[in-house]
Amino acid sequence: MELSKDAHSHHISQQFNSELEQLKNHLLEMGGLVERQVGDAINSLVNADSELAVNVRATDKKINQMEMNIDEECTRIIARRQPAASDLRLVITASKIISDLERIGDESAKVARQAIKLCEEGESPRGYVEIRHIGGRVQAMTRNALTAFARLDAEAALAVAREDKNVDMEYESAMREMVTYMMEDPRSIKRVMNVIWSLRALERIGDHARNIAEGVIYLVKGKDVRHLSLDEMQREVQGS
Amino acid sequence: MELSKDAHSHHISQQFNSELEQLKNHLLEMGGLVERQVGDAINSLVNADSELAVNVRATDKKINQMEMNIDEECTRIIARRQPAASDLRLVITASKIISDLERIGDESAKVARQAIKLCEEGESPRGYVEIRHIGGRVQAMTRNALTAFARLDAEAALAVAREDKNVDMEYESAMREMVTYMMEDPRSIKRVMNVIWSLRALERIGDHARNIAEGVIYLVKGKDVRHLSLDEMQREVQGS
Repeated sequence: MELSKDAHSHHISQQFNSELEQLKNHLLEMGGLVERQVGDAINSLVNADSELAVNVRATDKKINQMEMNIDEECTRIIARRQPAASDLRLVITASKIISDLERIGDESAKVARQAIKLCEEGESPRGYVEIRHIGGRVQAMTRNALTAFARLDAEAALAVAREDKNVDMEYESAMREMVTYMMEDPRSIKRVMNVIWSLRALERIGDHARNIAEGVIYLVKGKDVRHLSLDEMQREVQGS
Repeated sequence: MELSKDAHSHHISQQFNSELEQLKNHLLEMGGLVERQVGDAINSLVNADSELAVNVRATDKKINQMEMNIDEECTRIIARRQPAASDLRLVITASKIISDLERIGDESAKVARQAIKLCEEGESPRGYVEIRHIGGRVQAMTRNALTAFARLDAEAALAVAREDKNVDMEYESAMREMVTYMMEDPRSIKRVMNVIWSLRALERIGDHARNIAEGVIYLVKGKDVRHLSLDEMQREVQGS
């Protein structure tokens, strides 16, 4: 009797583990799709590819649905398995990460929307270099944040947070350039504004990637590092 | 023995209920502060009151701390009480709502930042009427979403979601006006851009208030209404 009870609870815990594995996989699958969306959105804009842009906007609906499904999965696991300690931390962090992924999807859709407008209004005379550059960086941040999650790598997560600071600085400088350009050539204002909104969306993607990275640090170190300076964050990751 | 056990579990459930009440109160307290931040940020901008703007930015740190505290409270309740069904829904929804409140705080701080810039660079020749108007609406949306949460009022939450649509339309129209104005008077571009960023922040506040309202509907109806059209949402709220 005792043995069969053990076997039963062993079975339960195996099932629970496979549910957690599945949750991770669903998150990474959604993450992979979102990362591709970032790249496609950038390409649709710099290549004036309105078909690709329409595609990005359609795929965004799929991402929204994925978020709702995974969110439900998280609630179900908490309700049925009553996880404790690190398992609970995993489920709660996963539920936060998918919300950031969904928003990265939203911002990609916004870039695609500007791409469609630029196809209609005529390309912008400037800003594509900056879009490509900052876009490449925030796409890499998204990918690296997800890899850090998959490997529970707090150091890699810290590097993502650090990169966000660099992106912010590049964004500020690109923005000043765009304003100068509008002042020099007021006829271009409308089209440059489309680039400005795209740059803004990319900068937000960097913020969300940083949020994901902070979630990974919480997962690994058990410490909420939101709103800390990079130096403080580094101490939390490397200390103890 | 049986009776004492009952008394014991009664005591536990009383404690649990008071913990949930406390969680709600903390959320509403944070919400009250955030709502005031929205108003202060708008006033700092339209009255060119840099002292008030500095104040808003300082208070934002307090709001960040409140979010982290309440988040910890949510995790603690789930870990210790293992709530089921509607109690679990309350805790999970609360944790999402405070994240939206924190972001409303962030956006208010962004408006305050633009206010400080406008104090330095000279006021914008246009856009204050729109700031005041849209600002008033999103501040009311924030307040109404929180009241809907306090009263578990799904109808009131639906009204907030509906209002977000109106705000989006007004935002689009204000934005077109700002672009026209920059084209007419290129010397004003820099200052009008500050107004544009403020309008954008206000529009985002409306989005977050809508997210909170959707959380309230989930809480009351047990149905995830994110990404639904307003008509579909109305059917979920009023049907069954």
